[in-house]
Amino acid sequence: MSFINDNFMLKGEVAKKLYAMVKDLPIIDYHCHLNPKQIAENYQFRNAFDLFLSGDHYKWRQIRTLGVDEEYITGGASDYEKFREFAKAMPMMIGNPIFHWTQLELKRYFGIDEILSEDTCDEIWERCNELLAKEEYRAQGLITRSGVEVICTTDDPADTLEYHKALQGFSTKVLPTFRPDKAVEIGKETFIPYIEKIGVKSYAELEKWIRERIAYFDSLGCRLSDHALEYVSFGTADASLVFDKRMAGGALTDEEIDGFKCALMTVCAEEYTARGWTMQLHIGALRNNNRRMYERLGPDTGFDSINDLCIAEKLSAFLGHLNTAGVLPKTILYCLNPKDNYVIGTMLGNFQEGPARGKLQFGSGWWFCDQRDGMEGQMCALANLGLISTFVGMLTDSRSFVSYTRHEYFRRIMCNLIGKWVEEGEYPEDYRALEKIVTGIAYYNAKNYFNF
Amino acid sequence: MSFINDNFMLKGEVAKKLYAMVKDLPIIDYHCHLNPKQIAENYQFRNAFDLFLSGDHYKWRQIRTLGVDEEYITGGASDYEKFREFAKAMPMMIGNPIFHWTQLELKRYFGIDEILSEDTCDEIWERCNELLAKEEYRAQGLITRSGVEVICTTDDPADTLEYHKALQGFSTKVLPTFRPDKAVEIGKETFIPYIEKIGVKSYAELEKWIRERIAYFDSLGCRLSDHALEYVSFGTADASLVFDKRMAGGALTDEEIDGFKCALMTVCAEEYTARGWTMQLHIGALRNNNRRMYERLGPDTGFDSINDLCIAEKLSAFLGHLNTAGVLPKTILYCLNPKDNYVIGTMLGNFQEGPARGKLQFGSGWWFCDQRDGMEGQMCALANLGLISTFVGMLTDSRSFVSYTRHEYFRRIMCNLIGKWVEEGEYPEDYRALEKIVTGIAYYNAKNYFNF
Amino acid sequence: MSFINDNFMLKGEVAKKLYAMVKDLPIIDYHCHLNPKQIAENYQFRNAFDLFLSGDHYKWRQIRTLGVDEEYITGGASDYEKFREFAKAMPMMIGNPIFHWTQLELKRYFGIDEILSEDTCDEIWERCNELLAKEEYRAQGLITRSGVEVICTTDDPADTLEYHKALQGFSTKVLPTFRPDKAVEIGKETFIPYIEKIGVKSYAELEKWIRERIAYFDSLGCRLSDHALEYVSFGTADASLVFDKRMAGGALTDEEIDGFKCALMTVCAEEYTARGWTMQLHIGALRNNNRRMYERLGPDTGFDSINDLCIAEKLSAFLGHLNTAGVLPKTILYCLNPKDNYVIGTMLGNFQEGPARGKLQFGSGWWFCDQRDGMEGQMCALANLGLISTFVGMLTDSRSFVSYTRHEYFRRIMCNLIGKWVEEGEYPEDYRALEKIVTGIAYYNAKNYFNF
Repeated sequence: MSFINDNFMLKGEVAKKLYAMVKDLPIIDYHCHLNPKQIAENYQFRNAFDLFLSGDHYKWRQIRTLGVDEEYITGGASDYEKFREFAKAMPMMIGNPIFHWTQLELKRYFGIDEILSEDTCDEIWERCNELLAKEEYRAQGLITRSGVEVICTTDDPADTLEYHKALQGFSTKVLPTFRPDKAVEIGKETFIPYIEKIGVKSYAELEKWIRERIAYFDSLGCRLSDHALEYVSFGTADASLVFDKRMAGGALTDEEIDGFKCALMTVCAEEYTARGWTMQLHIGALRNNNRRMYERLGPDTGFDSINDLCIAEKLSAFLGHLNTAGVLPKTILYCLNPKDNYVIGTMLGNFQEGPARGKLQFGSGWWFCDQRDGMEGQMCALANLGLISTFVGMLTDSRSFVSYTRHEYFRRIMCNLIGKWVEEGEYPEDYRALEKIVTGIAYYNAKNYFNF
Repeated sequence: MSFINDNFMLKGEVAKKLYAMVKDLPIIDYHCHLNPKQIAENYQFRNAFDLFLSGDHYKWRQIRTLGVDEEYITGGASDYEKFREFAKAMPMMIGNPIFHWTQLELKRYFGIDEILSEDTCDEIWERCNELLAKEEYRAQGLITRSGVEVICTTDDPADTLEYHKALQGFSTKVLPTFRPDKAVEIGKETFIPYIEKIGVKSYAELEKWIRERIAYFDSLGCRLSDHALEYVSFGTADASLVFDKRMAGGALTDEEIDGFKCALMTVCAEEYTARGWTMQLHIGALRNNNRRMYERLGPDTGFDSINDLCIAEKLSAFLGHLNTAGVLPKTILYCLNPKDNYVIGTMLGNFQEGPARGKLQFGSGWWFCDQRDGMEGQMCALANLGLISTFVGMLTDSRSFVSYTRHEYFRRIMCNLIGKWVEEGEYPEDYRALEKIVTGIAYYNAKNYFNF
Repeated sequence: MSFINDNFMLKGEVAKKLYAMVKDLPIIDYHCHLNPKQIAENYQFRNAFDLFLSGDHYKWRQIRTLGVDEEYITGGASDYEKFREFAKAMPMMIGNPIFHWTQLELKRYFGIDEILSEDTCDEIWERCNELLAKEEYRAQGLITRSGVEVICTTDDPADTLEYHKALQGFSTKVLPTFRPDKAVEIGKETFIPYIEKIGVKSYAELEKWIRERIAYFDSLGCRLSDHALEYVSFGTADASLVFDKRMAGGALTDEEIDGFKCALMTVCAEEYTARGWTMQLHIGALRNNNRRMYERLGPDTGFDSINDLCIAEKLSAFLGHLNTAGVLPKTILYCLNPKDNYVIGTMLGNFQEGPARGKLQFGSGWWFCDQRDGMEGQMCALANLGLISTFVGMLTDSRSFVSYTRHEYFRRIMCNLIGKWVEEGEYPEDYRALEKIVTGIAYYNAKNYFNF
């Protein structure tokens, strides 16, 4: 029996029945980091390294853990040599999601049942490369064969979105997402260069520019924004004065930074609300911890981790402030630290309000939590504290064209969890109700919520 | 087979045997929010809405999540229309404790096996209303049929306790609990009005008043106090000066607030200790997050959530301060955020001391944690870090006259957990020892601990 | 069937096969608190109290929880009377690791199958005392029969290490560990007396002294250091000025304390790196919470608990600072609060770098977390976030000569966890790969990592 078999991650009979209801539903991947240029140009992968490893810092990180020299990870070694180090590492990945992700990808896209290892490396390398040379294994073919209805990429406000325009005829909707972190993060070293690049001279101009760019994104079908934040800021400092002080080279206090971020994000929220967009808040990453490797490889290369700040009070204050002002959009709160699951799971309920079903959402297990334990932790918190039946479900958050199998992975884990509740007598074996719930989480809730 | 059947929540044979040992034990509900007036006047519920929904913000919150208009939750719609929205919501409550609570209440009080849903709504509405019209379904009848030995309500120090007096002939002991939050919370907007209402002019007078009210509560059989706190304060500021500053309209620093609260709670603790009372500390709620709905509906309407402050150091300092002064009463620590389970679970051990068995207690899973995962998390932490065998067990913390089934729910979950340990070979199948443990947690530990 | 039987803690067939692979491997106990004098002098235990209870504050704490008077715990009662209180307490220890530890110790060292209780107390007391009178039950015999290859004790830098020298002919390697807490903790009341004792006059002299003591420890085979910290400090204050201020009686700010600790620990790290040592950081204890009992019994008597500070940012800054300076040694991060599992589990990956395999380690469940749930939490976090296959595994951290059974306990729990993954189809049933993984975690990873 293949390691990836029909019952992979499904432990009971109810779980299997539930999974059968969702397995063929389309995929709405409402948050990812695919490169729209690669989609538009229908990129052809040069080999299995290029597809599986060239941009995947999750894998680099674990290969480093085994003591492998950086030369064979991101350095000058050949693609084959690097793939080989990964193959050797695979059997040591027990309990890590990379093991499952990789075997799912090999099975679904390449029909490979063997476990990737030093022994099977060459055979798998060749088999993959052979298929990757085919037309239907280019970027668009991989998307099409995955049954993806919508892709939402992640884009800077200054982006021309030319590739999204070029993709308007593609069978899968490829839509931009508005991510204005560089304009918001006034305390970071990226702020002044960014402001100079976009050419605004004051906070008033910045605000105007943000509103215009949101309108532009909206005109190309954008339905979501995204903000990455160590914690959600709330403050009342005068954003205009803080902007001027920063541009004049002044050092800002925490209160000034919080006040500026709160003000600019309120402007954003106002626009999102007016357009029916969804605001995503990704909370809790601690980035670029290794200065030496940052200088060598740049950001997003596997040197990030989880922060542990107290987030509840400011998050409540910010959402409450938007709510009082009538500009709280549909919002998805993602926490990276599972200690925050119960904070987020109960924060939702403070602001739920019709007509949206699940207006406030608890985002699926994210990044380091994008694995069985992380997903189950998020889903159990959500179910106990709110309504998992309204959950908009999975997204890949990925840079990879074969990561759509993570929707399968999620669906299996979700059906297994709910099936377990039924088998243990904690919910009736009522398949009409269950079908509504599991197909909702897998597909329909997202479809109705985002309104693409 | 009924959804609520004999083996509900009981997964193994040992669990079933253990549950048989506790199922008929009386209930000591040492902390709840029942209205003593309703008990004394033997309130008659006008219908199923009145009983199940009229005061239950847990349910309101989840119905809101489904996008239902407030009109049909707390607004002007008819009782039937509101009950119907709840019925429609029920199948969507998968994984949420409301699903289990509701079905348990329907089964135990009304003999209803059907799952409440849009389809069964009318039939259940009528069946419940028919029974609620009967004499034995009034407030006192519901309590009596639940096998409740003691009820401890939650009362303001200024309360006359007239209804508790009136209830002295009732077969169930109905005792007051001393909850002086409004006198303690000097930083909140409720403080000055409260001080003016009780008519004290100085901290010395406040202290005297508090001592007198404790004596009065004690004269009516009170055995517990209760304090709700975001975190437990410790400080050394002069309470008298802080009081005067606040009453003169001054803005207090955090140190002043901590100092005042610490001083007044030390006075309380001194009285509790002298009288053998138990002090309850409920830690970690973040309340009234939605200003707009607060202005419309007031507090306790479903807009509260979980805070995530660092609580260990000040909690240790406060308890240590009482302990050094010889005025640390029996104490129950409740945490709302499960991230604090291991902090509380180990804090207990710092101050355990005879002759009380389990002098310091880790309170049962509370509010948002009053569900299977929350209870199991609390019990596993307690067992690993201390002695679950000394645990005083469950309380409803509820405003509802049919929530006594939560004691059944807890007993099932507790027996299931301990039964699992036995079945997995982690404790001997020694029913003499096990009976002592499970009947202790279900009933006898509380009986001996509180000494009503 | 004995409570401690072949399948204790092993729930599936795969788990049993995996445990068979590791059960007879030697033990490397790379962190403990055994008294080297007792080993060198081949201490003879006067009775079962002396062996099981005389130094075990874990047990004292739980006996106190039952309300037993201190007289019968650490006070003037006879050894037998104290042992009897423990025996009476045992059946009440359900769910607590002491129950398992005690039964494992009785079984493995004394061949006793009975559960310790009031009923079996006398029989067990006599059986243990009879055996403890024998030559082979002295300290060295207990170590030898446990299959211990290496013991690393925990020692003050000022220690002469005379007993380690005396033990150089013993079949088990007994090596010192460098634990300079008293020199590092400038904010504590122990600092000035310590500095006066070692006779240094300035920070420069202290630094020199530390380097010399590390060299001395190294000359006796030391391969690890250990630091106990509430949180890991990072700061830039001038250590020399801070030292002088403190010695002159000045009160230090948090920044000064952080700066001093960071500076002195950087000196340590430089030496550790140069010598290939491993640095252990034990994070998160909140000690000596009960002033009254501290004054009566001193430290380490069962009045410590878990702190809950935010630790991620300073820990990242400190490790990053060492890494940038090229003086980050092999490091084991232990967290006492399980809320930090995901912070630590992801912090590792920021600094992994060859040639060491798993250069940064997540230390095994420690102190209050040294139990099934704690171990599983640590292992699941490590597996999901990093590579459990590189884990250096268990250590006793104990003062007891019969605690080696905790390695057995750990191995059973580890094999059970990994076996479960295999049985549930989450890893192939490939015993070649599995043997490499489980024997690695049980023994070989530590052997290769520490290089004794």
